Amino acid sequence: MPKVGIVMGSDSDLKIMSKAADMLEKLGIDYEMTIISAHREPDVFFDWAKAAEGRGIKVIIAGAGMAAHLPGMCAALFPMPVIGVPMSGKNLAGEDALFSIVQMPPGVPVATVAIDGGMNAAILAAKILAVSDEKLLNKLKEHSEEMKETVQGKAAHLEKIGYEAYLMGK
Amino acid sequence: MPKVGIVMGSDSDLKIMSKAADMLEKLGIDYEMTIISAHREPDVFFDWAKAAEGRGIKVIIAGAGMAAHLPGMCAALFPMPVIGVPMSGKNLAGEDALFSIVQMPPGVPVATVAIDGGMNAAILAAKILAVSDEKLLNKLKEHSEEMKETVQGKAAHLEKIGYEAYLMGK
Amino acid sequence: MPKVGIVMGSDSDLKIMSKAADMLEKLGIDYEMTIISAHREPDVFFDWAKAAEGRGIKVIIAGAGMAAHLPGMCAALFPMPVIGVPMSGKNLAGEDALFSIVQMPPGVPVATVAIDGGMNAAILAAKILAVSDEKLLNKLKEHSEEMKETVQGKAAHLEKIGYEAYLMGK
Amino acid sequence: MPKVGIVMGSDSDLKIMSKAADMLEKLGIDYEMTIISAHREPDVFFDWAKAAEGRGIKVIIAGAGMAAHLPGMCAALFPMPVIGVPMSGKNLAGEDALFSIVQMPPGVPVATVAIDGGMNAAILAAKILAVSDEKLLNKLKEHSEEMKETVQGKAAHLEKIGYEAYLMGK
Amino acid sequence: MPKVGIVMGSDSDLKIMSKAADMLEKLGIDYEMTIISAHREPDVFFDWAKAAEGRGIKVIIAGAGMAAHLPGMCAALFPMPVIGVPMSGKNLAGEDALFSIVQMPPGVPVATVAIDGGMNAAILAAKILAVSDEKLLNKLKEHSEEMKETVQGKAAHLEKIGYEAYLMGK
Amino acid sequence: MPKVGIVMGSDSDLKIMSKAADMLEKLGIDYEMTIISAHREPDVFFDWAKAAEGRGIKVIIAGAGMAAHLPGMCAALFPMPVIGVPMSGKNLAGEDALFSIVQMPPGVPVATVAIDGGMNAAILAAKILAVSDEKLLNKLKEHSEEMKETVQGKAAHLEKIGYEAYLMGK
Amino acid sequence: MPKVGIVMGSDSDLKIMSKAADMLEKLGIDYEMTIISAHREPDVFFDWAKAAEGRGIKVIIAGAGMAAHLPGMCAALFPMPVIGVPMSGKNLAGEDALFSIVQMPPGVPVATVAIDGGMNAAILAAKILAVSDEKLLNKLKEHSEEMKETVQGKAAHLEKIGYEAYLMGK
Amino acid sequence: MPKVGIVMGSDSDLKIMSKAADMLEKLGIDYEMTIISAHREPDVFFDWAKAAEGRGIKVIIAGAGMAAHLPGMCAALFPMPVIGVPMSGKNLAGEDALFSIVQMPPGVPVATVAIDGGMNAAILAAKILAVSDEKLLNKLKEHSEEMKETVQGKAAHLEKIGYEAYLMGK
Repeated sequence: MPKVGIVMGSDSDLKIMSKAADMLEKLGIDYEMTIISAHREPDVFFDWAKAAEGRGIKVIIAGAGMAAHLPGMCAALFPMPVIGVPMSGKNLAGEDALFSIVQMPPGVPVATVAIDGGMNAAILAAKILAVSDEKLLNKLKEHSEEMKETVQGKAAHLEKIGYEAYLMGK
Repeated sequence: MPKVGIVMGSDSDLKIMSKAADMLEKLGIDYEMTIISAHREPDVFFDWAKAAEGRGIKVIIAGAGMAAHLPGMCAALFPMPVIGVPMSGKNLAGEDALFSIVQMPPGVPVATVAIDGGMNAAILAAKILAVSDEKLLNKLKEHSEEMKETVQGKAAHLEKIGYEAYLMGK
Repeated sequence: MPKVGIVMGSDSDLKIMSKAADMLEKLGIDYEMTIISAHREPDVFFDWAKAAEGRGIKVIIAGAGMAAHLPGMCAALFPMPVIGVPMSGKNLAGEDALFSIVQMPPGVPVATVAIDGGMNAAILAAKILAVSDEKLLNKLKEHSEEMKETVQGKAAHLEKIGYEAYLMGK
Repeated sequence: MPKVGIVMGSDSDLKIMSKAADMLEKLGIDYEMTIISAHREPDVFFDWAKAAEGRGIKVIIAGAGMAAHLPGMCAALFPMPVIGVPMSGKNLAGEDALFSIVQMPPGVPVATVAIDGGMNAAILAAKILAVSDEKLLNKLKEHSEEMKETVQGKAAHLEKIGYEAYLMGK
Repeated sequence: MPKVGIVMGSDSDLKIMSKAADMLEKLGIDYEMTIISAHREPDVFFDWAKAAEGRGIKVIIAGAGMAAHLPGMCAALFPMPVIGVPMSGKNLAGEDALFSIVQMPPGVPVATVAIDGGMNAAILAAKILAVSDEKLLNKLKEHSEEMKETVQGKAAHLEKIGYEAYLMGK
Repeated sequence: MPKVGIVMGSDSDLKIMSKAADMLEKLGIDYEMTIISAHREPDVFFDWAKAAEGRGIKVIIAGAGMAAHLPGMCAALFPMPVIGVPMSGKNLAGEDALFSIVQMPPGVPVATVAIDGGMNAAILAAKILAVSDEKLLNKLKEHSEEMKETVQGKAAHLEKIGYEAYLMGK
Repeated sequence: MPKVGIVMGSDSDLKIMSKAADMLEKLGIDYEMTIISAHREPDVFFDWAKAAEGRGIKVIIAGAGMAAHLPGMCAALFPMPVIGVPMSGKNLAGEDALFSIVQMPPGVPVATVAIDGGMNAAILAAKILAVSDEKLLNKLKEHSEEMKETVQGKAAHLEKIGYEAYLMGK
Repeated sequence: MPKVGIVMGSDSDLKIMSKAADMLEKLGIDYEMTIISAHREPDVFFDWAKAAEGRGIKVIIAGAGMAAHLPGMCAALFPMPVIGVPMSGKNLAGEDALFSIVQMPPGVPVATVAIDGGMNAAILAAKILAVSDEKLLNKLKEHSEEMKETVQGKAAHLEKIGYEAYLMGK
């Protein structure tokens, strides 16, 4: 049974949101993923958001660009955490979506991550679930260890071959 | 029967939104005015927005600050024009609300006016109704004439008494 | 007889403004479309804006970039609704045009839509006309239904084939 | 044993962060609260952040202004969720702190809430804990119900006494 | 016969624009000053701007806030230099007016000065007239000399009494 | 003898600044053009700016990007008008250069034109010279007439062939 | 003999710049402080900046607001480090000064500190001098220790008396 | 023994940071260069930053994008100057990194250079070392002389061949 619901307002968000799915898979977390527009199909959206708790969803990851109301409306209807991913879009570099998602009024927070931060949304969802799941917490610690090793590997490589060679190899 | 519905997300918006009410009264347009939070009472909001057409409402004026989803969600549910008024709030000078209201995705426009532009929202509502109401159109033309005379009066006063005296008299 | 006048300050705006024309055609609304620069031919512009009411125009859609005075000057001369479309241009991502169009002073509103929001301008114009045109209102409701079905189709497709396949198929 | 750790970089953040404490108390959640500067006492900070898991902390709420590194550095050291509260400060209206907190690199997310959003940080922490605590989830639902009733009360009051009286009574 | 026309869109701009008048008087340059709204009285504005050349005006100084079309529309109608002064207004700190004034399209420049830069607009007007008026050029050089002496006086005072005393004396 | 001095801080500005040269040539105005960096060769710059008046220069056009001190330092040293052209550069879309050029302190104005507005800088220079040169004023009026005809030609073309054909022909 | 030269463009910057002087005194570093405007007295400024090295100055701290050319022009003329302090001013919250100071072109860096960061400019100057002055380096380490103790004292106080009492005592 | 430590948070910063290395080599300054992520390997980072002084490092150059905590955390741990280089990244054009690096709190300054200003960071490091190294100071003066000659050469070339030819030759 999926514990995380990934939702996006448009299939143009899929490239970024698929990184959330990839990371959830890597961490072994069941999820569902769909496209729902709070603006173009408000009834469908309402039913989906209200039924999420009953389906066993514990965290929603919602991605949206421009006016980006989807995450905030999820937070109005779903009682557990909603993670918002601002999309960068064609103009304004995602500043519009960031403001629309993060500046929620008192009482209805959205846990906002970086612009185009699909992967980080999944990690945050995992951290939330790990509060009561020690096995997952250990997986997250392993993942942190891996990240550390990756950076150290790059540093060693750079120190070994020098920056001219490193830049050419990229 | 009211033709314009004024709605705001919080009573902290009332000072600005009351200017919309003032102007509608001046132009002789029936309206209703209430406070509904799309975030804190989404069901109440949904019912209100969906029932608006049935109540005879032709234009909605929606004011909101910060993430400011109210106007956009009205536009998702109400088939006639929705006018959005971005509120300036404590931080970011209303830029957050402006982006959240104006940057609506294809298919669901909100007619956005200036930050804190409560009065202009009412004039825009009147212009919309005036498309099929010649009497109201004439009232709007009279109002334009008044505005012109007010400015001309100020100009004449300034030219007569000079700027030092004018500034002291303010 | 055209009910909507589409005007733009430069033919570099045509790509965006043609989306307004496309949508008006789809909704069966008569329109006229031209290029007029308020800055480079102010007299031509004045005559055009003042004569619009007499030609039967009920709504003006004005697109402009950078300092973007065209929509606001239309609103100063035409007594019914003016819809402004900010163009994104080469620098500043349309923030200059957005501010120039939306921040109109008390008394002279412009109904502003998203940056590069040509299609939404047409839908807003249709919503304005639909206030007194039930047939058009029904067409708009059908169009909303279509949009809903499009999103639902994409969601079903995504759920069926999975995101890797979906992304490859784009 | 406290489950939430509230930390701020300076006592000038206390006015906002105390709203987080107030809300946690209202929801019956144990917390600890302290002042630690990641910049002025990095060793103290490191020890505190690393020991947090061992002390039983499940969620950290970190508030900071300006360059605002505290939440991000917590997220580097603590394996469960870190909620960041950007402070508005004297200049730039909190936009500096917002960017510094939300724009975290891949792998190390911070759950960012609105500028000066101390209260919402506590509600988000409660939502995170409620994923595995049904009693708390019910308290959150009651709180949502209360918020709804408060808005409805204000709406009823406004509709009863009118906006002039309402504004005077504020 | 006045050589400089000072115009502003609203009497709320008078406090800033009066500094332009003060400086022109100090430099002995004849000017006229009035309030004209391009938005609220476009016909009055058109007549004024077109007649300016015939009245002997050589430079127009136009101040405006928010959408700030006045300077740009002057530049469309008046063939000699137009100086634009962006007003800071209530929200957005004058960034809206700055963009609206400075971002003019190819062919129709406005000589833009700093936000709230009324005094500098007058000095720029004087520099423009000084191109063909050696006496005025000498006055400007004297004014530069005075400014230099004022700063040098402050520096000497600071060096003499120290910064604690200087700050107390302010 | 050149009346206009065009100066830029780097040869990367030449593409934009050459448009100023083109327009001055078109209007028959003698100019000189060079590259001088106020930062990299302050002495050369000082000598150039101080000697400009003696060489007969009446207006300086200075283009610069990023910190963009060149126009402001010209204005500190040259007693007649300085026109500043902000360059858009790689980051920040020219907002940095715009602020650095337009926000001059009281006493030392720079006549700022649009970001990358090289051509408009030349037209503004011509308008300044035209204050005392009726022949040039007439040329400017002819140029305005040409611009008007160009726009009218485009409008006629669009109305004749329709927007699909027009867009294809671009 | 002073090793640090503090310079500001206007005495309105003195309140912030005096914090630099305070900190230099605390750290036992000799300094000189004066007011010089690069715009209003370019010759005085040139002579001062060029003579600084000869007077034994090793670091210049330059504060300026708005277009803020002073630090950058110091860096053009003085061969050792120049620290720039952007002033917040009346509009734009210091973003104009920040961009003007930090966005220097290749070859001529300014070491920029926070908006209104007078105190930090002095600490940075001390750190620069401490590269070759072990006694000063030790003083800086003591100062860091003091800062740490101050924060720890506040934390202990907060934990002892609770946040309500702490807030009341502020 | 290296005197300058170049550090970056990710190898995606290497293209910019290698310009710092190039310039240090040109000026004959020994340096070390590595990749360390303060977020992904905080312990490695802490050890590196604390050991830097013992290794003889006198100046750290730290480059980072987005939330960009690396330079500020270096400044918390290393007692001598830290130079921060904001990276422009995919969204927000480096404004996020600039704010995160420059807006440091009182007591812990970072010497911030321009967005993507890798080369200038090296020159600033050299200027800092030149405070106590006359030979290096002379090299810097030679480098300034070279820059001056380069610009003069370009100016001469432009004046000789004209701008059309110059632009074609680029």
